[in-house]
Amino acid sequence: MQTLKVELGERSYPIHIGQRLLEQPKLLTEHIAGRQVMVVTNDTVAPLYLQSLLACLEGYQVSTAVLPDGEQYKTLDSVSRVYDQLLKDRHNRTTTLIALGGGVIGDMTGFAAASYQRGVHFIQLPTTLLSQVDSSVGGKTGVNHPLGKNMIGAFHQPQVVLIDTDTLSTLPDRELSAGIAEVVKYGLLYDAEFYRWLDQSMDALMARDVTALERAIYRSCEIKAQIVARDERESGMRALLNLGHTFGHAIETHQGYGNWLHGEAVAVGMLMAADLSARLGWLSAADVAGIKSLLLRAGLPVYPPEDMSPEEFLALMAVDKKVTDGTIRLVLLNSIGSALMSSDFPMSALMATLKAGEDLGRF
Amino acid sequence: MQTLKVELGERSYPIHIGQRLLEQPKLLTEHIAGRQVMVVTNDTVAPLYLQSLLACLEGYQVSTAVLPDGEQYKTLDSVSRVYDQLLKDRHNRTTTLIALGGGVIGDMTGFAAASYQRGVHFIQLPTTLLSQVDSSVGGKTGVNHPLGKNMIGAFHQPQVVLIDTDTLSTLPDRELSAGIAEVVKYGLLYDAEFYRWLDQSMDALMARDVTALERAIYRSCEIKAQIVARDERESGMRALLNLGHTFGHAIETHQGYGNWLHGEAVAVGMLMAADLSARLGWLSAADVAGIKSLLLRAGLPVYPPEDMSPEEFLALMAVDKKVTDGTIRLVLLNSIGSALMSSDFPMSALMATLKAGEDLGRF
Repeated sequence: MQTLKVELGERSYPIHIGQRLLEQPKLLTEHIAGRQVMVVTNDTVAPLYLQSLLACLEGYQVSTAVLPDGEQYKTLDSVSRVYDQLLKDRHNRTTTLIALGGGVIGDMTGFAAASYQRGVHFIQLPTTLLSQVDSSVGGKTGVNHPLGKNMIGAFHQPQVVLIDTDTLSTLPDRELSAGIAEVVKYGLLYDAEFYRWLDQSMDALMARDVTALERAIYRSCEIKAQIVARDERESGMRALLNLGHTFGHAIETHQGYGNWLHGEAVAVGMLMAADLSARLGWLSAADVAGIKSLLLRAGLPVYPPEDMSPEEFLALMAVDKKVTDGTIRLVLLNSIGSALMSSDFPMSALMATLKAGEDLGRF
Repeated sequence: MQTLKVELGERSYPIHIGQRLLEQPKLLTEHIAGRQVMVVTNDTVAPLYLQSLLACLEGYQVSTAVLPDGEQYKTLDSVSRVYDQLLKDRHNRTTTLIALGGGVIGDMTGFAAASYQRGVHFIQLPTTLLSQVDSSVGGKTGVNHPLGKNMIGAFHQPQVVLIDTDTLSTLPDRELSAGIAEVVKYGLLYDAEFYRWLDQSMDALMARDVTALERAIYRSCEIKAQIVARDERESGMRALLNLGHTFGHAIETHQGYGNWLHGEAVAVGMLMAADLSARLGWLSAADVAGIKSLLLRAGLPVYPPEDMSPEEFLALMAVDKKVTDGTIRLVLLNSIGSALMSSDFPMSALMATLKAGEDLGRF
């Protein structure tokens, strides 16, 4: 087991990464202050890991909320079901919420914890690669709104994150790929050496080699933790983690939540950001081709949806959270391993990228 | 105009108290960072003050949400309407929400601001005495749940609070009284001298003497600001501000939100807390009689609802936020002007208080 600390002053917390963590109750219980616990999970994960988790929680007053699985259920209504259960079972301010599942469960449980009685403790047990490397670090919580993704939420840090890599054994291939997209993102925006290692190790990762996966998870969490520690509230550097996300959110909103996986949309979005960066002369054509090839090896899509026009992209990008006072700001790449936030590009270059995406195969 | 500062480090903010503040746009606009503003108000207050407020906001992109008036609308559904409007009008992270109304509008607008895009700025313009002396200081925001009051919410501090005492001229008598209940609370729990001044000034306050009202508001906000500055997250001393609230919330929940005003329920709750304190030998019978008489002069109820049994009280008190691990903790009075949090009382004394309340006229 490896342990990483997210340094946020009095809100600091550890991330434990390794195998068989769900067989070690103490990792969990040492972070539970009261006697009440509410486990929030979904109907896909519950049959796989809920019993093991409940076995760790003997002696506590445990409530359980099993929500339907899927991004389309990441709504205020689902969070309301958690509130209902908490109140029905008379959970007080000392309760601890535990998120057992992927990013959707983690984000909703975190928001429920942030807002129940104005804030209670919570613990993350992420069971997908995507949530292990992304949403379990940094305290962003929230739900979607029909008009935009993650538009309602709060910053709320967990007490501890337990990443049990054994849970990846049951992860569908498509979701493994979606997680790899976020791992590639860390290399692209922050660490050229890690990007090269990913290029060398992609076959091992896709074959679910545990050593390779643990290394990828550890380094991804470490990069994210470093960035979040320097900019918890996303006033500057943290925004770089949104590489590919403004394009990606537009795809997700256009296609309806749940049809494209978040990581799939981000993969295409990163390639579009790389394409635009190349048009600005910051990346070479070879860099873009290399990124495309790596994403393809990871089983990821590299083209936006066929039915999505450049005009639809623009309209949806304009409502994204990264938009300040009407200007579209995007995370772009200076070089492999170095990102920057910019609104200083000609609209014609952005349109060329959107058109290249429309005209399949141009990237 | 008098100005008070709530000292909360980087979350510090000023409270301006005086007449004709709505005629001074700069008091407002110097706290608006971006170009977008969303005014949230209700259908009672909108016809009275919305135009004056909008006149202060010329040159901004202003959206308005007019919600139905009443505690029964302090729900997640109402907050959702604010989110909908914000997204429809494409408000981004630099937007500022302005709450124009009483505590219900302030709490909901604050929660919308706390959770829209994980937190945007907000400004309070409280138009009731209760919200001026209570909910506009301290950053508690939130909504009710069918199973409990204020069960969903967040701590989120405003940028500024503008208390325009002219708005009290249109306040119904019953709401003026409800506000006085909270003013009396500050005297009872913190400042015996202020309590004596209230006793002397009650006739002037009820006659809406502006000088007396301003003094009552200033001192109430000052006391609350001092307490909140020492304990923002309510881990200790701040809980004393809940004097009368555990009894009061039980009344409100039992009667259905909106039938009893919050201040009315708190008035009865304070008298019940005083009655219990007297049973424990901390207050004299004369103290309790004095409190009862002062509340009556303020036009407030002093008996719990006729149809509410001691058993119903107990059950509803057990779900209150102040309950930790099953023990009922109450704010009681050591003496006039000094409160303490205690769970160290015999259940028989609490039952005697609940029974005295049931048996009308015994207080």
